[in-house]
Amino acid sequence: MRLDINRNETLPVYMQIANRIKEQILSGILPAGFVLPPERKMADDHAVSRTTVIRAYEELKALGLVASHRGKGTVVTERKVPESHGNDQKVFPLSWYPLFDKKIANVSDTVSELMHAGNHNDVISLAAGIGDPNLYPISTLQQIQRESPLESDQLNLSPVEGLYSLRESISRLMTGRNLSVSAKEVMILAGSMQGIDFAARALLSPGDAVIVEEPTFLQAIQCFRAAGAKIIGIPIDREGIRLDVLEAQLARYKPKFIYTIPAYHNPTGVVMSIERRKGLLDLAYRYQVPILEDDPYGDISFAQERLPPLKALDPYGYVIYLSTFSKVLFPGLRIGWTIAPEPVMRKFALLKQIADLHVNTPGQFLVDQFLRKGYYEAHLRRTSLDYQKKRDVMAKALTQAKGLIHFEIPDGGFYLWCRIPYQISQKELLALCSDQGVIYTPGNVFYPQESDGEHWLRLNFTYESMDRLERGLSIFINAVKKLNKQSSQTDLETGSRPIV
Amino acid sequence: MRLDINRNETLPVYMQIANRIKEQILSGILPAGFVLPPERKMADDHAVSRTTVIRAYEELKALGLVASHRGKGTVVTERKVPESHGNDQKVFPLSWYPLFDKKIANVSDTVSELMHAGNHNDVISLAAGIGDPNLYPISTLQQIQRESPLESDQLNLSPVEGLYSLRESISRLMTGRNLSVSAKEVMILAGSMQGIDFAARALLSPGDAVIVEEPTFLQAIQCFRAAGAKIIGIPIDREGIRLDVLEAQLARYKPKFIYTIPAYHNPTGVVMSIERRKGLLDLAYRYQVPILEDDPYGDISFAQERLPPLKALDPYGYVIYLSTFSKVLFPGLRIGWTIAPEPVMRKFALLKQIADLHVNTPGQFLVDQFLRKGYYEAHLRRTSLDYQKKRDVMAKALTQAKGLIHFEIPDGGFYLWCRIPYQISQKELLALCSDQGVIYTPGNVFYPQESDGEHWLRLNFTYESMDRLERGLSIFINAVKKLNKQSSQTDLETGSRPIV
Repeated sequence: MRLDINRNETLPVYMQIANRIKEQILSGILPAGFVLPPERKMADDHAVSRTTVIRAYEELKALGLVASHRGKGTVVTERKVPESHGNDQKVFPLSWYPLFDKKIANVSDTVSELMHAGNHNDVISLAAGIGDPNLYPISTLQQIQRESPLESDQLNLSPVEGLYSLRESISRLMTGRNLSVSAKEVMILAGSMQGIDFAARALLSPGDAVIVEEPTFLQAIQCFRAAGAKIIGIPIDREGIRLDVLEAQLARYKPKFIYTIPAYHNPTGVVMSIERRKGLLDLAYRYQVPILEDDPYGDISFAQERLPPLKALDPYGYVIYLSTFSKVLFPGLRIGWTIAPEPVMRKFALLKQIADLHVNTPGQFLVDQFLRKGYYEAHLRRTSLDYQKKRDVMAKALTQAKGLIHFEIPDGGFYLWCRIPYQISQKELLALCSDQGVIYTPGNVFYPQESDGEHWLRLNFTYESMDRLERGLSIFINAVKKLNKQSSQTDLETGSRPIV
Repeated sequence: MRLDINRNETLPVYMQIANRIKEQILSGILPAGFVLPPERKMADDHAVSRTTVIRAYEELKALGLVASHRGKGTVVTERKVPESHGNDQKVFPLSWYPLFDKKIANVSDTVSELMHAGNHNDVISLAAGIGDPNLYPISTLQQIQRESPLESDQLNLSPVEGLYSLRESISRLMTGRNLSVSAKEVMILAGSMQGIDFAARALLSPGDAVIVEEPTFLQAIQCFRAAGAKIIGIPIDREGIRLDVLEAQLARYKPKFIYTIPAYHNPTGVVMSIERRKGLLDLAYRYQVPILEDDPYGDISFAQERLPPLKALDPYGYVIYLSTFSKVLFPGLRIGWTIAPEPVMRKFALLKQIADLHVNTPGQFLVDQFLRKGYYEAHLRRTSLDYQKKRDVMAKALTQAKGLIHFEIPDGGFYLWCRIPYQISQKELLALCSDQGVIYTPGNVFYPQESDGEHWLRLNFTYESMDRLERGLSIFINAVKKLNKQSSQTDLETGSRPIV
């Protein structure tokens, strides 16, 4: 019996012997009833110890491939197939819930509820996270489709990292964002969210700490929860993340990374100042903590000045940069990208292989053509102007309720972040608005600890057409006024009016 | 100071107090320098214990929002931003590798290597896992695009579970696979692989056992490795998974689920017999273990009879069924689906939200139109006939090397699974073939323990055109013969010729 034992292999010799015999049994070379050589003979023949042979035979027994027969030795078994018990077998229906991994049980279904709520045409959604579908450059896209109809190269697998041509186009796009990178440093993802998920999968083990701004993007919170992480929220002010609080928490929790949205932060609209960006990097360097920079809104700017992303300020390779086409172009294609240090790119490529192999090829073609033909800049200018007008309309409408609804006017992005009076119940406000066909996003979903944010809410100004936006705002503002009046009266009646 | 304490909330009262004060500090209601009420007064005012107030204040101190000043009490702090240290700060470049989660470190880069190797036009790939791009129904697809040009509904977000219309089309398609399901029981995924990943994420915690056939789909192995699972391989014979071995291992390991490819198994081409299917379900019921049924190849059948999937034989909700359009239609769209018990669908929907939100919308439209217009069946017949011819050509060519290359002829699917003589080194064979522009997949990548499968390899017969396939096979067979001759000579010279 030939066994090909290789003593340089990492696999233990007994496993090598078991595997070789297993192969020969399964390929039919050693038939059922075949008696394996006695342990001592086997040991002598192959210059191994008898213990090694015994362990190998034990392994084969555990696999059911051989059995010990007294007086006969170790024999290759018959392949027995148990009888089907048919209808008389008592089957217990499966209880799935105890089987699920506990980490995933932490994830709640907020997103899907919000998406479903916004899927009806009659509902005015101030809860959306996307741009105005009426502004999609449909005719340009149809022209691209006519000029480059589907061919088999568009239906084939792409490289895991994405089409090289699109990676090139994105590297040129990044120049306009003050970041100079080569195509090879760009990897295409199914939305920037996939980058958040990959960072969580690559870096977080259950119990690890991760730092987020508070409030922050709700799906990032869900994602970190699904990884079993401890999520530490750091408050933000008008200049972005509070570095003093951050430093205290870096020392206390030794987090795996810091997740931040420096440009037109979701949900607050805050832009992190240049000093704060530098200070954040300094802290990252001092505490050796990487930064996950999420930049979905950076291009949608109504301001003159455009600050460089953290990635552009970081010569030391601490920053993983994420962005997407879902906000400026169209969300249904699910195309985003990452620019990351090389070890991270490798991990992301491995994760991409087990997650979904690569991003849909024709979608990559379409966006690449759109970028190469120079349509992006004009489209961006057009949509930004439109969104700026809508922001102004929203800000003006809310100003009518000054003293009731507090907010700052953002210089870009998609949202106004509003504080409502303490005496108004968010639940009642949501119900009152939704009864009249208007939805918005309650503030608590943006907090790691959902009981926070009770008196805050996020209004989107990009998705609805101007007239629907105005109608929705008027309903929303009236609802706030109505509930405020009611609760003030109750307070007067019960004598417990708040002092603050 | 109003604090809104709710004693019915699950959040501890001290955290509620801390959160309310934090909100007031961050929103500017309580400015820097503001002195919080003394602990005893606070406790009395809100009918809580002094300890509760102390803990709330401690929490605020940890956040850096307040500080204790002797003689003054607890004071809201100034927002200090540390100075940037500029160029004189000594920065340590980040070591990424120690930061990565250990589970992910188990995943190797086999897939990407194989994909890259097959991306060159001049290489004849017998390593592919896809169909023949020359058979893509291009003109039909272009016609669909002309008839339904891109509109904004194709660029919008889809529901997390996929476009309802496509889910309906798939439910009709499943009728032809002997499985009757409603559209609501179908969820669209980015390839069936995403279903494997989701099952792993939903069900596996590190250290859990999972059962696979041995050999099996290599990306399933990678995926389960990334989840930190213990992968238990069960040998298969001509009727599929060995139930006797399976039963022993079910009792021994209590696995979280069984992953199986019952129809035209990858890589062996084996179809699980109906008796074996029933026996497998019996075991699943008896040991209360769910089954993940992967069915990418079921439609590509050269046989008269079509066996029902496990899902169709399971009235008790133990089976998660996965399939894909990547094999019959086009892999670049990345569209697959799952049919799963309701609790699993819910978990998958949550995972989809944090992974990539939904599958690319225009791709879903395209496939749905293709199915609705009735093109699928004709396309499937055409491609299956072509693949059957290629299988015959491959089998005939390999028969010339009878005695050297052992294989069974599969009734469907994409692959021939071959055993080569023990004395041939797989490494040398791979190198010799690749020097002459031919690649194939070595057997070891299909085994959980990669040192197995050394004398096996997988040949794909669907991807290459007929003449390239024949050329590739001729090179491959000659390489096997050459290495066999060489090693026989060496054996003769050294006198160690194998007895088997």
